[in-house]
Amino acid sequence: MTRNTPLPQPTALTEALAARYGAGLVPNPPEDLPAAAAQILHQILSHRTWRSFRPDPLPAGAVELAIAAAQSAATSSNLQSWSVIAVRDATLKARLNAIAGDQPHVAQAPVLLVFLADLNRPRRVTEAAGGKAEALEYLESLVVGIVDAALAAQNAVLAFEAQGIGSSYIGSLRNDAHQVAELLGLPPEVAPVFGLAVGLPDDARPAQVKPRLPQAAVFFSERYDPAAALAPVAEYDTTLRAFQSRVGQLEVGWSRTVAERLRGPEALRGRENLRDFLRNLGFRLK
Amino acid sequence: MTRNTPLPQPTALTEALAARYGAGLVPNPPEDLPAAAAQILHQILSHRTWRSFRPDPLPAGAVELAIAAAQSAATSSNLQSWSVIAVRDATLKARLNAIAGDQPHVAQAPVLLVFLADLNRPRRVTEAAGGKAEALEYLESLVVGIVDAALAAQNAVLAFEAQGIGSSYIGSLRNDAHQVAELLGLPPEVAPVFGLAVGLPDDARPAQVKPRLPQAAVFFSERYDPAAALAPVAEYDTTLRAFQSRVGQLEVGWSRTVAERLRGPEALRGRENLRDFLRNLGFRLK
Repeated sequence: MTRNTPLPQPTALTEALAARYGAGLVPNPPEDLPAAAAQILHQILSHRTWRSFRPDPLPAGAVELAIAAAQSAATSSNLQSWSVIAVRDATLKARLNAIAGDQPHVAQAPVLLVFLADLNRPRRVTEAAGGKAEALEYLESLVVGIVDAALAAQNAVLAFEAQGIGSSYIGSLRNDAHQVAELLGLPPEVAPVFGLAVGLPDDARPAQVKPRLPQAAVFFSERYDPAAALAPVAEYDTTLRAFQSRVGQLEVGWSRTVAERLRGPEALRGRENLRDFLRNLGFRLK
Repeated sequence: MTRNTPLPQPTALTEALAARYGAGLVPNPPEDLPAAAAQILHQILSHRTWRSFRPDPLPAGAVELAIAAAQSAATSSNLQSWSVIAVRDATLKARLNAIAGDQPHVAQAPVLLVFLADLNRPRRVTEAAGGKAEALEYLESLVVGIVDAALAAQNAVLAFEAQGIGSSYIGSLRNDAHQVAELLGLPPEVAPVFGLAVGLPDDARPAQVKPRLPQAAVFFSERYDPAAALAPVAEYDTTLRAFQSRVGQLEVGWSRTVAERLRGPEALRGRENLRDFLRNLGFRLK
């Protein structure tokens, strides 16, 4: 995934699906896809989270183009209730990374984007128009800001990948959302949702496509199917152990990882305080 | 945007950026983008929300391919804490649409996808592994489920667009999240985040690229810039009035729309109860 490598050929679509589902059942793509469409789909299906970056700066204009892509995502009622800050300053990035658990790929990445749920701009726009913005006091408005930020960020991830640039979401900035807000000078009712470490991939340590649950476990017709949601978990544990073995990780499968991650508030490493962080940042969460 | 129309040429990238920002300042794309990359970026930049669909069913395999794309998005700690239900049954879709305010394009769309924050599957996986999943009681876990669902949905939107299929997010399913949960048979700790109406675009009523705020209003370097966040609002009001005039909408600009949408809980049309809905669905929100 270096910058000028041509994108994979459309014929590889079925292989991309196979990599995404491991040994699991793979859906058949429609038969008459135009080549350009297949190429876009191939890129989306082949997404990898990069955890090793080269120190080089990004090409001029690459981040601005990704942000334009981010702004092209849908936004609830066109409120555009998100913002993003590019952190390149080494000292500031290191302080943010300390909150995120000192991850090596954040240290390597030339840019850390911090995506924000931003209710401050719509509040000020409303008040400048003579309104009161009382709807912002409700949990609903935080959800709108989080969804807006996430849709935007995912567009940015794909825009970076199209440019040969890798990325990695950093949810652990929420470990201390309040300190992140202080470091970035956030006004009231603006909260960090996640970071995105961005850089040119280090091809010496390539990222791998991680297999997901079979489609039948997450995709239902007309009604939720609690049996289908759990049926393939044993099979997926096996798929993930095979993946972990291949990439040199501990072969723990999926269930044990999930159980460890969710065992209690201490596993959240600070994020158990998110409600208090948000209240301190001015969100009422009614 | 019919199914087999070839995708636009890469040379159109600057035009796509101009359409996205209206009269606003447009970033310069990097100069040496490969043609395939430019094509992907062009599709992302040219996103439109479709509000008019043909009644035809979708091509076989199109939805499954979009869901595979959705599953290819990043997911926090690989918890995969989201699910999605495809509603095609006319009666069920009409009942959901009644909650969403009886929107014509939901009625027209052959498929309504409902994206869910799903903490039930990780809870059951944890408990089957002998764990307790107490971390799910915290607001943080709801945020993880919402972000997971949003990243997945945005990949699906782009996968549909690559296939010549249009879509429209339906946030108003949250107007009565509890009734949505009943209609779809959701187990505890599963909540609707939004719907996505999906269908073949009605080219007789084409959707338009909606201009966004200038990039300087949402994208900052190193620190949040409260002055920059508001500086271009008057200019954007003008841009949006020109857009509204062009597409035959009331020329109200942006500020007044924002103020109207946020004026108070009554403008949320039920969503002011989201916290109570979620508590009733088993989310503790600690």
